[in-house]
Amino acid sequence: MERNLEYLLEKCALEEALLKYCTAVDKLSDIEFMLSCFTEDAVFDLGGLQLPRYVGHKEIAAFFTQVFKDMSHHAHLVTNFRVESLAKDAADVKAYITGMGRSKAGIDILVYVRYDLRLRKTSQGWKISFFSEEPIMPMPDSVLAVHDKS
Amino acid sequence: MERNLEYLLEKCALEEALLKYCTAVDKLSDIEFMLSCFTEDAVFDLGGLQLPRYVGHKEIAAFFTQVFKDMSHHAHLVTNFRVESLAKDAADVKAYITGMGRSKAGIDILVYVRYDLRLRKTSQGWKISFFSEEPIMPMPDSVLAVHDKS
Amino acid sequence: MERNLEYLLEKCALEEALLKYCTAVDKLSDIEFMLSCFTEDAVFDLGGLQLPRYVGHKEIAAFFTQVFKDMSHHAHLVTNFRVESLAKDAADVKAYITGMGRSKAGIDILVYVRYDLRLRKTSQGWKISFFSEEPIMPMPDSVLAVHDKS
Repeated sequence: MERNLEYLLEKCALEEALLKYCTAVDKLSDIEFMLSCFTEDAVFDLGGLQLPRYVGHKEIAAFFTQVFKDMSHHAHLVTNFRVESLAKDAADVKAYITGMGRSKAGIDILVYVRYDLRLRKTSQGWKISFFSEEPIMPMPDSVLAVHDKS
Repeated sequence: MERNLEYLLEKCALEEALLKYCTAVDKLSDIEFMLSCFTEDAVFDLGGLQLPRYVGHKEIAAFFTQVFKDMSHHAHLVTNFRVESLAKDAADVKAYITGMGRSKAGIDILVYVRYDLRLRKTSQGWKISFFSEEPIMPMPDSVLAVHDKS
Repeated sequence: MERNLEYLLEKCALEEALLKYCTAVDKLSDIEFMLSCFTEDAVFDLGGLQLPRYVGHKEIAAFFTQVFKDMSHHAHLVTNFRVESLAKDAADVKAYITGMGRSKAGIDILVYVRYDLRLRKTSQGWKISFFSEEPIMPMPDSVLAVHDKS
């Protein structure tokens, strides 16, 4: 990846696509906005957390509908954003996420994970086509207690 | 907002203006440096934290003089910085802030908030003209114990 | 420092050099990769944490060999990255780091520090030539318990 204006513009757009996803997940209310972050055939793979894999808008929508029902607060903090590969229409990025939440049942969650994302450039800008994450610090038991609906 | 070199330069300058504010608030000693982050008519609105609203350099200086007297440590970590709107001389930005502190009385504070800022472009660069913040996670009781001087 | 495309490209490269270091320290396994972040004559000064100062690749390698042996998890989160000075072949940067770890003995560490780095531009890009850090929040006792091998 040559470092030039084109690279800086794409890196900025890729980071904004990730921040848009975090805004959507923290908003806890707008499924359409959430889906606009993903390509229609996107894979949302939580295997790294011992949770299921969701394929396509319909399954992703069902997952977040449940999450938004369960949670009263969400905050996903992005650090260490890196572009791993960048081609004309596809890119791989990684970032550390500090994921915080409180469920309506009063359970607090705090996880430190790394996102590994593949994004595809569409006519509406970069969208996530493959989402995966894995812990960078040991996971608390509360995560499975809240999220495991499988 | 078209994504071009001009946008990247302004985004960089806006983020640097916010980081300058964080440096000032974490320094806990230099009121003049703090005031240089704000336009003279700036509104510093803590209503989102159930705290007062300060208008202009004099009121903002009085607030931070008290804060600097009360606190022995401060650390304000910025993530999820976003430009919401950008015109020739005005911009709106949002960011998540992890705000940490210890008071001289030994009380530890940890809050997760979102800043909503309006900045104005001056002859000395971007300065904050409107500052507001609100919690993104439930606030601990210690915040009001330490900061509520009203 | 004039704000132009050259500045944005160098700032991006400097931040990527710091993130590479964090990737290396969090990987806990690859000493060669770690050393590639430093100039051969680099000074790695932990005096700000009441720990030793290591000079050159050999001493830095010995330090991290021990750290990698001791720790099972590491996560170094970068925020508030700032370029303090930028010349043709040298730059000073600062950043806040949230440093987390778990030792194999089961001790958890969480520190909030500020890195003060000097980097030198080499034929393989920016490398750290002087590394120092100091606490921005009070340090827990666990840090010295885990890291003090001197």
